[in-house]
This record gives sequence, structure tokens and C-alpha cells, in this order.
Amino acid sequence: MALEPRLLANAIRALAMDAVQAANSGHPGMPMGMADVATVLFTEHLKHDPRDPAWHDRDRFVLSAGHGSMLIYALLHLTGYDQPTIEDIRNFRQMNSVCAGHPENFLIPGIEATTGPLGQGLAMAVGMAIAERHLNASFGDDLVDHKTWVIAGDGCLMEGVNHEAAGLAGHLGLGRLNVFWDDNQITIDGATSLSTSEDIPARYRAYGWHVVACDGHDYDSIRAAIAEAVADPRPSLIACRTIIGWGAPNKMGTSATHGAALGVDEVKAAREHLVWDSEPFEIPQPIMEAWRDSGRRSAHLHEEWRARLAASPQGEELVRRMEGRLPADTGLAAHLDALAANPQKIATRKASEIALEAINAAIPETLGGSADLTGSNNTKTKGQTALTRDDYAGRYIYYGIREFGMAAAMNGMALHGGVIPYGGTFLVFSDYCRPAIRLAALQRIRSIFVMTHDSIGLGEDGPTHQPVEHVTSLRMIPNLAVFRPADVVETAECWALALERRDGPSLLALTRQNLPQVRTERSRENLSARGAYRLRAASAARKVVLVATGSEVELALKTADVLEGQGIGADIVSMPCWSLFDAQDEGYRADVLPANVLTVSIEAGTTLGWEHYTGRDGIRIGLDRFGASAPAEDLFRRFGFTVEAIVPQITAALETKGDQ
Amino acid sequence: MALEPRLLANAIRALAMDAVQAANSGHPGMPMGMADVATVLFTEHLKHDPRDPAWHDRDRFVLSAGHGSMLIYALLHLTGYDQPTIEDIRNFRQMNSVCAGHPENFLIPGIEATTGPLGQGLAMAVGMAIAERHLNASFGDDLVDHKTWVIAGDGCLMEGVNHEAAGLAGHLGLGRLNVFWDDNQITIDGATSLSTSEDIPARYRAYGWHVVACDGHDYDSIRAAIAEAVADPRPSLIACRTIIGWGAPNKMGTSATHGAALGVDEVKAAREHLVWDSEPFEIPQPIMEAWRDSGRRSAHLHEEWRARLAASPQGEELVRRMEGRLPADTGLAAHLDALAANPQKIATRKASEIALEAINAAIPETLGGSADLTGSNNTKTKGQTALTRDDYAGRYIYYGIREFGMAAAMNGMALHGGVIPYGGTFLVFSDYCRPAIRLAALQRIRSIFVMTHDSIGLGEDGPTHQPVEHVTSLRMIPNLAVFRPADVVETAECWALALERRDGPSLLALTRQNLPQVRTERSRENLSARGAYRLRAASAARKVVLVATGSEVELALKTADVLEGQGIGADIVSMPCWSLFDAQDEGYRADVLPANVLTVSIEAGTTLGWEHYTGRDGIRIGLDRFGASAPAEDLFRRFGFTVEAIVPQITAALETKGDQ
Repeated sequence: MALEPRLLANAIRALAMDAVQAANSGHPGMPMGMADVATVLFTEHLKHDPRDPAWHDRDRFVLSAGHGSMLIYALLHLTGYDQPTIEDIRNFRQMNSVCAGHPENFLIPGIEATTGPLGQGLAMAVGMAIAERHLNASFGDDLVDHKTWVIAGDGCLMEGVNHEAAGLAGHLGLGRLNVFWDDNQITIDGATSLSTSEDIPARYRAYGWHVVACDGHDYDSIRAAIAEAVADPRPSLIACRTIIGWGAPNKMGTSATHGAALGVDEVKAAREHLVWDSEPFEIPQPIMEAWRDSGRRSAHLHEEWRARLAASPQGEELVRRMEGRLPADTGLAAHLDALAANPQKIATRKASEIALEAINAAIPETLGGSADLTGSNNTKTKGQTALTRDDYAGRYIYYGIREFGMAAAMNGMALHGGVIPYGGTFLVFSDYCRPAIRLAALQRIRSIFVMTHDSIGLGEDGPTHQPVEHVTSLRMIPNLAVFRPADVVETAECWALALERRDGPSLLALTRQNLPQVRTERSRENLSARGAYRLRAASAARKVVLVATGSEVELALKTADVLEGQGIGADIVSMPCWSLFDAQDEGYRADVLPANVLTVSIEAGTTLGWEHYTGRDGIRIGLDRFGASAPAEDLFRRFGFTVEAIVPQITAALETKGDQ
Repeated sequence: MALEPRLLANAIRALAMDAVQAANSGHPGMPMGMADVATVLFTEHLKHDPRDPAWHDRDRFVLSAGHGSMLIYALLHLTGYDQPTIEDIRNFRQMNSVCAGHPENFLIPGIEATTGPLGQGLAMAVGMAIAERHLNASFGDDLVDHKTWVIAGDGCLMEGVNHEAAGLAGHLGLGRLNVFWDDNQITIDGATSLSTSEDIPARYRAYGWHVVACDGHDYDSIRAAIAEAVADPRPSLIACRTIIGWGAPNKMGTSATHGAALGVDEVKAAREHLVWDSEPFEIPQPIMEAWRDSGRRSAHLHEEWRARLAASPQGEELVRRMEGRLPADTGLAAHLDALAANPQKIATRKASEIALEAINAAIPETLGGSADLTGSNNTKTKGQTALTRDDYAGRYIYYGIREFGMAAAMNGMALHGGVIPYGGTFLVFSDYCRPAIRLAALQRIRSIFVMTHDSIGLGEDGPTHQPVEHVTSLRMIPNLAVFRPADVVETAECWALALERRDGPSLLALTRQNLPQVRTERSRENLSARGAYRLRAASAARKVVLVATGSEVELALKTADVLEGQGIGADIVSMPCWSLFDAQDEGYRADVLPANVLTVSIEAGTTLGWEHYTGRDGIRIGLDRFGASAPAEDLFRRFGFTVEAIVPQITAALETKGDQ
């Protein structure tokens, strides 16, 4: 490359300040500060091929400091990706532009991950690096051999999730993970010294990382640091001392460059300072050519890899996994056959375990784990060995007490592809990882969250551990499928749905306590796929529909028995998944939940939201307060989850209704 | 004390294993492992007076590893607190026992904080230590001079929140905070080496902490470590190498002792091993006497403090603040007078700032802050200076990019008493601190969360930053008051309600964008206290009720204008707080939202839950998908939040209704 790298970097700076200025919204400081580091990474190290953003063996690059989105938009455009175009960049942050305020993996193929909520990009990158080593262990260096690169800011390194992620990465010895820390000593409120005094390099060393520092505006220094990081067998933190907004002469080094347009005058001053005299959004031809040349740097590696892939007996299998296609037999059909033959009363967490025994045997790409609740979440099956720094082939991860780090790492694995991650914790701790669950939904990826101990039914651990509002609050996250199966059969059905769902995450809410098998006939149709279905039709003339989920389906059945004994016909509807039911056609929905019949919901959680199915005239049996510490049966009795407490409410309502 | 401390410690061990065995549920390992350390702390260091658990200048002790609840129950009982009694302990984890599975501050006065969700006890303790230094700066050593002690486990130190909390504590130089780390090298899944390799002491040193190690079963070693910690001006981590379940001869040192009863045989074996021959739940008289003596250790300090308090001109003010009583004038009445006289169109985040100007001037105990969004959350008022290690009198905390750490620290401050903490971040990042918001609600404490940028109205930052499901998902947390005010007047009213609410937290959802003042007449009644109220009655015959919150009240008013122009009478109901409305009597509720009138909800968030007010026949204008990146007005138009989009839905529904 004949041109000075600073010229290339200044193209990033120009695009960043022009786009933010045009939108009068955005964050120019970070792209301008990290332009030099990013230029070295993209022109000298990153293995990628702009012609094929989906090349399975590309290096992954994650912009954890996602507010600096113009950095990645500029890099993708300059190195020759189809997207974003210069028009996209001109329309930065405008309706229908793929150049959204923060980078979105679902808008631009070259964006590996949606970032913006700080810390999560780094944590997802840890998951990507795990997936890479795991697949490498199965497919070898010929087919899987790439690095994961991250740019993180001070915010990423202050967020708690970075602690969990870095601890996990250090423990697993993910040496191919390299994180650039944009050490600009500035946050939104001002100098980092306002809020922190920590020695970040020392902290990362304590996690078992390699740490190297560089001057983020000195190319030799940057090159030496990267070389050292690449050579070191540990994950590396590359501390890049930078000046935020480098190039804006009057504002650089201050938080004024962080989150607002520089202003017309300062953009003009920056152009003079950088000796950059082309028009806004225009890149001088020689500089553009140099960037495009760099974008072709790894094309031969891509070709060689394609040849190896074609020649490899494992090639097709790798492609199948990377494309996210399940094997023809997921093991679940035979499993469901066996269940019908042999009814059993077990907890749905246990039902999940036996479903997983079938799944893990049939689907080699599942990669399980738990946030230190393996025996409680029932996430580990017989054949699974631990994934460790000495054996990346293991298919079970001891995540430690790191719920958020686990969920974000799972997202990274799903984004990387080639594995289907599932991980467990208690449902109440979905709160701890909720930001990652939301980001899985937004990113449309197949992460499967196994959340056990799903109600006051967990008993003695008390209100800190008893989810009340969680199931319904999770149902509100767009594109998250929340399943609350009622028995061992529904659990297997919901697992099948979660696995088949390639464009979004699933969450299974499972009981601690045993539940009878309510589905004892083998159904060829996956009834849970309807979201809700009539589990049992009324015998007497139908006066009421009882709709319940999970552990309360048993209670609904017992309640119906008593009602039927009084001549009151009662349908039982099991509703393992609200969103799937809402997606059914109106005819089906009206058949299952007819509008003119008293509808009673029973769920051991908040009643808010159930009016959607019961109407205001229906009855909602639930829990709108915190739980308590006592054995489960005592709690269910105290909070009115008994036939004796429910039946009189129904008969009273029917009488009132009859009076009208 | 004549008795060997080990004998005293064994009383803890006996009670722990007996209670867990009786319940056949619980966690004996931690209390047995930390009994020796806790004995030294409680008999030689902790400043407390069991006769008065509310003594304002007592040391605070937080059992962050809350699953080891039997440790604190035993300590409180043995040192002579009224609660728990031995009967309470016999009923450990049973219905109506104050000895819940995890310690609950609202059940036993001597419990400083509800713990169990790991890491949060430590983070709350940081807040307590901040409150102590802050009050010390105002009231001096004579009145406020105590320490904060914590017992944390490996789980606490793996959770991300410990990173945020420890970083903040190190930055603020909270030298009177001492944290015992129960370094037993065991987690639920097995050895800590399964999931972590970090050097915790090095990490804490990186935060600016002092670290000292001891043998947690050697009294001289424990004493030396505590002495060193107390002498050091930095916050201290005391690494206590312990054996989990110490005393249970066949199980100690293994995860088998962590979360299950030891079993009858092992309890018997432990009694022999410990040479402890009294009956279950019986403490030998000399040992009980020694414990009770130790409980009287600080009584004279308490008496001396009382004398100083009585003599101090500041005594009454300290007591007022510690008891949580507001000053007679909160500044808000005059503020509301001024607002009525001078209508203004401003964002509710700005409205919050000007309310805070009045509040902070009138109420000296408010202590504000933001998670690095000071200028965006509008949380800092003119007079506020920063609380720093050099000036604890400051009333504003730069929390850094630590939402969870901030919220948990706020909870600790509220628990400590004497301050009213408020803190800001973007509403979407309520997910990052949701576990602490929930714990504030469970603990019934006055933490005030200021959450701005409360809908797609924030515009260009896009879906990662746009709350959709958040407002309603927060409404589901029991005992949390969620306010979404519509203008500057409602904002001031909601602030008044949040301040007056002594038994639970409040959350204000505030806009980024400007809103017109919809309340221009001075109301003597705080209308927001009703939760919802008729903002404007229909002019024409009423055919529809529009109920809206926050920024959508303006849209409702404009919609009503068009409807009224068509002869369709429309009430406008503003509903800043669901839970307060639900608490009104039926007559009021039926008057505001009559059942037989078409009801239309308008809120730029999930529609789920709104059926509670609109019924299924009503119309719910909302957003059940992720947002997008674009200017706010474009987004509101795209997603149907316009008069043009809403009016036809209403007229169509009225026609359908008329046809019936």
C-alpha cells in the first residue's frame, strides 16, 4: 500500500463527521478517535472478504461501543461491501436507511452483532470465540480457524457484564480473542476520573488475560501491540490511548465530541486540520482505491478455504450447521412416541432433561450450559462433557454465577453460527440477563433460555427467588417465544419449536415441582405449535373455559372435575405459548376461546395481561404480589391456587351472569 | 470472655444444621463455614445493640450471600435480639416464620437488607457506606460514625454487579467498608475451578481496595486480618480461606453441604465431631450467656451516642432524616403555583429537573446521580456539587456507566436511611438494573428511579435504545409505583408522590422530546395521586373515552379535537400511574372509565395489559414490535401515532358499535 495509513483513517473520520453532521445526530468522537487503530486492523489483520460477508471462516469483528456506528459503516463501505452504500451513509439515522443509529445485524450483512447497550458486544464476542474454538475442535484448522476482534470503550469496561465475560474468556483461555480498548479517558459526563479510578489492565491480568498498550494514533505502536496480542496464547486486551474526536481541532479530547454533531464550523475546521478538501461524503479516488485493495486482501484465503471445504468429507456437515439447518431427525419424534407409551409424573425441568437426552444425541450442534445451577436446571445430559480450555470439543459449559455473561455469550454463539446454544438459570434471574434476552430477540437469533423454578412452586427459597411478574413481562419482549409447558409431552413439543425457530430466541419456563402427564395420547401434530389448544372438552353443557399454563393445567383439570360434577361443563385449554396462539387465525382462536363463554385464566403469576384472553368479565386467578417462603403446597393454598378457592368464584360468576 | 470462641461458633453451626434439617430445605454449608469469622466479627467488632436494632449509628452488617440466612438468624438470636426467637428458627422456611429462606429486611428488624440475589448485598452495602460518609460530613463524628460489614461468597464476586459496586467503592475511597469473602472454593456445580480462574485479590486491588487474607478457621489469623482491614484507609476485602460445611465430617469441603440438609446421619456425625451434645435447637447455658454478654458489648456506646444526640443542635434534624420524614415544605407547592402562572412546552425530563431544583433546595436529604447521563437525564440541579472521596458532603454522584451498581447502591442508601436517593439512566436500561428495582420494591424502600428517553420519541438512537415493553413490564413489579407524567405539572405531582411514598420505590418515565403543558390551572389536589383523572370532559355527547399517558396525552387531546369537530364527544383521561388508579374506589374508577363507553388507550409502548382498562372491545393504540432509527416525528408517523391514523379507527368502531 503506497498511501500513508493516516490518509485512509481520515476517510473514516470524514465520513463519520459528515454523516453525523447531516443527521445532526450521532456520535463522531469514537470513530474519529479509533480511526487509526481500525485502519490497521482492517487493512493489515482482519481476515474478511467483502464479497461474501457470510464466509464461515471470516474473522469476526464486533463494535462493542456501538454508538460509534459510523466507524463500522465507514469501514464496510470503504473496504467494498455491498452495504452500506454512500447513499445509505448519507441517510445515516434516517427512516429506512440501513445505517441506523446503532449497528444492526439484521440490516447489514457485514454487521456481526447489534450493539449499543454497552458491554454486550464484548460479551457476545466471547461467545463467538467459544463457538470458533468449539467448531475448530470438530472440524480442524483447515475449515475453522479465525479470530474475533472487538472495539470496546470505557462504558463497555464499566458495565458489570464485562466482568462476567472477561472472567469466562480468561478461564477458557480464548487466545484468539483480541479486544481493543478505546482508552480516551472520556465518558458522557466528562473525564473518566469523575467516576472511576480502577487499573483496568491490572484487572484484566487478574482474569488471566494478556494486556498490551499502545498509542492509538501512532501506527508503529499500534502494529507492535497487535503483533504482540496475536502472538500471545491468552485473550488480549489492547489498551489504545486515544484522543476522542481526533482531528476536530477545537473539540478533540472532550466529551463534546461524544454524542452530538460537531457543528458546521468545527467540521470545517477539522477538514482544514486534516487537510481533507473533498466534498462531504466524497472520498478521493486514490484513497478509495487503497481501501478497496485492502478489501481484497483475504480473497485468496477465502478461495483456498473454499477449495478445502469442497474437498473435505466434513464440508457439508459444517455448512449445514453454519446455515442453521437441523438434521433430518432431531430425536424428538421417537422421544414423543416413548412418552405416550409411558406416562410419568415429573417436573418439567426433568422433562426438559429427558428431551435434551434425545436432542443432544441427535443434534451435534447443541452446546449447553448453566449459570451454576446444573443440577437444578437439569441442563446437562449423560453424554455431555465440559468444554474447557483443554478440550473445546466439550458440549457443556460451566458458566459460573454469570447469568448475563452466559446469555450474552449464547447470543454470540448463535450469531457466529454452527452451534445452537442453550443455557439455564432460575426464571427469577431472567432479570439478571434480561438485556441479553432482549438483544437476542432484536437480533433474531436462536438462543434458547432454559429457566427453571418458574413460580412460587419452588417453595422455601422465598420471594427473592420466586418469579411472579417474570413470565408475562418476558412475553412482552417482541420476537421472544416464551413457553410454559404443562407436562413432559408439552415440554418436548416446546423444545421442538424452540429448535425449529431460526429467527428468534425461545425461553422455556419450567417447574421445580412434579407435574402429572396430562397428554397421554400420541399426537402427530405438535399441539403446542398452536400456542393454545383444547386439552379436554366439556362433558356437560359448556359454561366455562379454563385456560391455564404450565403447572396450573393440573389445577384447571381438577377444578373442571368438580365443576363437571356439579353439571357445569368446562373446557380446559392449555396455553404453553401466548405469541403462537395470537398468530393463529381468528377462527381457530374463537373456537378455542369463544367470546361468549365465561373464561377463567389460571397461572401462578401476575394477572396483568390475561384480560387479553378472559376479557374483563372473565376471572383471572393469579398472584399480584410477592410470594413467601414456605413449602410449595402451603404457598399454593395460601394464595388461592386450590380447587376449593377457585370453584366458588366460578359458580358465583355464572350465577351473576345467569341473573343478567 | 472466658469461653473459647470456637464454642460460640459451634452454636451457630448447630442452629444452622438443625434448622435446615428440620425444614429439610436450606443451606447449611455457608453458615458452618463462616461461623468462626462471624463470631469474631459479632463478638469483637460489630457495633450494635440488640435492644435497639434501629440505632442510627450502629454498624451495618449485610449477608450478601443470603442463602446462608441461618448465619444471620443464629447471630441475631444468640446476641439477644427480640427476633428471631428459637421458635422462629425451629420454623425456618415455614409459612409465617420470620426466618424465611433468604433474609428479609421487612420481617426482622435486625436484618439490614434482603439478600439472596447474588452480588446485590455487596452493592447495597456500598450504598450504605456512601450514606454513612455523606451524613458524617453533615453531622460529624459525634453523631454518625459507623462501619459497614459484608459477608460475600464466590457467587457475589462472580456476578457483574460486584464489579460495578467495587469500582464505585474504590473510586470513592469508602474505607469503612469491609467485605469478608467466603473463599471456600466451592459453588453449586462443584469446585470454583470449573468456572473461574481469576485472581480476585488482584482484581480488587485494581479497584483501589486493600486486600488481606486469613485462615477463616484460625482465630488469630482472623483477628489480625480484621485489624489490618480496619486500620487501612481503603475499602477492604478480607479473603477468608474456609471450608464449606466445616464441622460436618463426611461432607465438609464439598458442594453437598451447600444447598441441602446434611441428613440425619451427618448431623449426628457433626455433633460428635464438634463435641456438641445438646439437643437440637438447644444452646448450652454458658455458651448462650457468653453470646448475650457479647450482645451487650456496645450498649455503653449506644448510651453515650444518645447523650451526644440529645445535646446536639443537629440531633432533631438527624432523627428526622433517619426516620424518613420529609420537611414541612418540600418546595413543590410554590413550584406548582409558578407552573400554573407560566405555561411552558418542555420535555418531562426537563420538567423533572426544574421540579428537582425546588426539591433539592427544600429537602436537604436528597442525594442525586446518574449512570453517566447527567445532561440527558437532567438529574443535576444548580446547587449540587459532586460527592467525591475528598468531599462526601456533595449531593450528586457520578455513578459512571454502572446502572445496576447505581440502583443497588441507591437501595443501600435508602436502607441506611437519612438520605433519599434518586438516580437516572435511559428507560431502556431499566433492564440493566431491573434486579435492583425489584429488590427495592420487595424491601419497601424509597429509591427513586429517574428514567428518561421513555419511548420511540427518543428518535435516532434506534431500537436498542427505545423502550417498548419497559413501562408495562415495570408496572408488573409488585409495590413499584411507575409514573409516566404528561407535562410539567404532572411531573411535579409525580415527584411529590414519589417523595411521599415511604414504603416503596418509584420510577418516573420521562420524555426526551418537548411536550405542551396540558394542565394550566392550579389544582389544589394532586390529581396524579388518583392514578388517572379526567383531564378534559367531552363537549359533544360522550361517545368515547381516550385514555393516555405521558407524551401521548397531547396526541389524545388532538385526536379529541378532531372527533369533537365531527360531533363525537370524547373524554380525555390522563393516567400517569396505573397502580394508584387501581387503588381508587370503584365509584371513582367507573366515573373516569365508564364500562359502556368505547375506550381507547394511547401509549407508545406494548398494548398488552391495556385490556384491563379498555376491555377487549376497546381500541389499543400502541407498539408491539421493536422501534427503528429515525427522527421522532417520522417514527410516530410510521407507527400510527397520529390523529390521522387514530380517528378512523375510532369512527369505524363507533359505527360497528352503532350497528349492533
